[in-house]
Amino acid sequence: MKGVILRINPTVRLVDLSHEVSPQNIREGAYIIGSAYRYFPADAVHLVVVDPGVGSGRRGVALHTEHGFFVAPDNGVLSLVLAQEPVQQAVELAMPKYWLNPVSATFHGRDIFAPVAAYISLGVPLASFGPVAKDIKTFTPPAPCVQSDGSIIGEIVYIDRFGNLVTNLSLPADTVQSKLKIQVGERYIQSVQHTFASVDAGELVAYVGSNQTLEIAVRDGNACETLDVSIGDKVTLFRDCEA
Amino acid sequence: MKGVILRINPTVRLVDLSHEVSPQNIREGAYIIGSAYRYFPADAVHLVVVDPGVGSGRRGVALHTEHGFFVAPDNGVLSLVLAQEPVQQAVELAMPKYWLNPVSATFHGRDIFAPVAAYISLGVPLASFGPVAKDIKTFTPPAPCVQSDGSIIGEIVYIDRFGNLVTNLSLPADTVQSKLKIQVGERYIQSVQHTFASVDAGELVAYVGSNQTLEIAVRDGNACETLDVSIGDKVTLFRDCEA
Amino acid sequence: MKGVILRINPTVRLVDLSHEVSPQNIREGAYIIGSAYRYFPADAVHLVVVDPGVGSGRRGVALHTEHGFFVAPDNGVLSLVLAQEPVQQAVELAMPKYWLNPVSATFHGRDIFAPVAAYISLGVPLASFGPVAKDIKTFTPPAPCVQSDGSIIGEIVYIDRFGNLVTNLSLPADTVQSKLKIQVGERYIQSVQHTFASVDAGELVAYVGSNQTLEIAVRDGNACETLDVSIGDKVTLFRDCEA
Repeated sequence: MKGVILRINPTVRLVDLSHEVSPQNIREGAYIIGSAYRYFPADAVHLVVVDPGVGSGRRGVALHTEHGFFVAPDNGVLSLVLAQEPVQQAVELAMPKYWLNPVSATFHGRDIFAPVAAYISLGVPLASFGPVAKDIKTFTPPAPCVQSDGSIIGEIVYIDRFGNLVTNLSLPADTVQSKLKIQVGERYIQSVQHTFASVDAGELVAYVGSNQTLEIAVRDGNACETLDVSIGDKVTLFRDCEA
Repeated sequence: MKGVILRINPTVRLVDLSHEVSPQNIREGAYIIGSAYRYFPADAVHLVVVDPGVGSGRRGVALHTEHGFFVAPDNGVLSLVLAQEPVQQAVELAMPKYWLNPVSATFHGRDIFAPVAAYISLGVPLASFGPVAKDIKTFTPPAPCVQSDGSIIGEIVYIDRFGNLVTNLSLPADTVQSKLKIQVGERYIQSVQHTFASVDAGELVAYVGSNQTLEIAVRDGNACETLDVSIGDKVTLFRDCEA
Repeated sequence: MKGVILRINPTVRLVDLSHEVSPQNIREGAYIIGSAYRYFPADAVHLVVVDPGVGSGRRGVALHTEHGFFVAPDNGVLSLVLAQEPVQQAVELAMPKYWLNPVSATFHGRDIFAPVAAYISLGVPLASFGPVAKDIKTFTPPAPCVQSDGSIIGEIVYIDRFGNLVTNLSLPADTVQSKLKIQVGERYIQSVQHTFASVDAGELVAYVGSNQTLEIAVRDGNACETLDVSIGDKVTLFRDCEA
């Protein structure tokens, strides 16, 4: 893919964001690009290929937002970008003149997405790549659920390489409270701390992470292994409890 | 290695192709560079260091082909490039003035190959680095073997990070046939599909991969783990069978 | 982090040195940057984030040496750089105008270290980032210990991705001796060879590595797995023994 891009635009700046998405894991890819894109320059072209349906009927798309361009299979991998960014323009990739031909059945990253991204970086207008794309596929990011007792049930949406658990429970960035209780599996955490360094090594800790949601870690350890949890597992937040 | 290159040519564009070759696995490295080089610009300098014999008598070489320059230990790692590309010029690395001195016994990537690649990127002619190199070492890529019954026995030549099995059985890119049968281990696959997305999740599937050879995958799964196979294992193709 | 840097300095050259440091392993990070920095151009800005204490009171620092700039948490990760390089200037990171605000509690790499490194690459003087930093935290790199019988006890300070064991036992680069004996665990190695290629496949071998210290490998194998050792384990060198 890098070679294809460089042959089209020899002066482009290539930046590796992640090559660590678990195979076929669209949601994990969606989380990574959704967390990172806004930190890049507004003229960045984000090439996002997690593509288990390659070669099937799924479309390829290119989008333009205030925070950059996105080129990806239309399989939901841009869901978390679209949940945050209004789309200024969206097209379906339908013009083989911008592809590497013949197109293989299993590597559209190399044959379609990479060359299209390269042409966008050269300034080719989005409309050149195909017709307007409507109904970009998105999955609904899991939403926390407020219970009748005031507790909120959320879930683990991402696990980073340190084993830290990222949840979908939004909290203000400066939340430090001793009156919040968190449940994950059968374990309870009795407070929200400033950071994992607020507790002793080996201890479980909850804190507001760098994307303004509740995270759970083991200081100097691996919470994913300690708690034996997975993406999708429930995390419950008991607010303002007095016990 | 990157620092050494940048000190010699501060304006060079560094591109990481792979840092994932299994330790000492020359054939795996040969496959990766052999599959990728032709997609890069023709003035690219490919620095290919899989080097279990570092510090022994094995030579270092630099080659020029129509599709770029290659700098590597002369241990067969360029076999699949040489099987595809006529060599325009080949030299043995013999001029210490282009090396980092003193040269360590175990890191010629840093001390010899990286600086030579950097000087090539600056336009230093290949002849400057040493005498003409003859008899570049290559291993013969495994060739499929046609049996008396018309079946063809090939083998697995690469396994990608998804666990997909790449074989050495060449097929036209658009092959989709229900009359081909494939055997791998004790399992049979009854057709060649367009892509893995042509079957249901969890199913075994054969298809023509992005390098025009037969590949075997498990849709949304890992064929290497499911079939418990390794590089070198046999894959048999029964052509035009009627059963 | 890369996006943050590029928004501040769109023309900077980003170079990935390593993303493979074990979580929270300051000493491993210290070894990697300590081994590599001097090969980079002298105007390089080295951004070194291994940061288990993020969000606690630990400072961030920026240093200038003859071999480049370093931006890092003040937690010892620059110990091996400081053991080799006189510091020309050192400042504490104290000026939020050079940070991404609001600063998260857990990702100072993105919010503090990356933007500061980017501003340094633009030529902003170190003094702009905060007051002079004294007493930069360092751990004392483990020193070999000479015994009364003349043997020297060192230890494993790093294990590379090939499973090769790097020790802190310095030896001249061209040491090849049959009268040195090395003990690691309960195994003995009877000589120091030029390189791992000097022995047969599968054999244990000691040699002087690319950082001029004794290393132990299994040719075409993995010494770490074969010997079941870890960083910190003892390695004893019996010099000039006659037995």
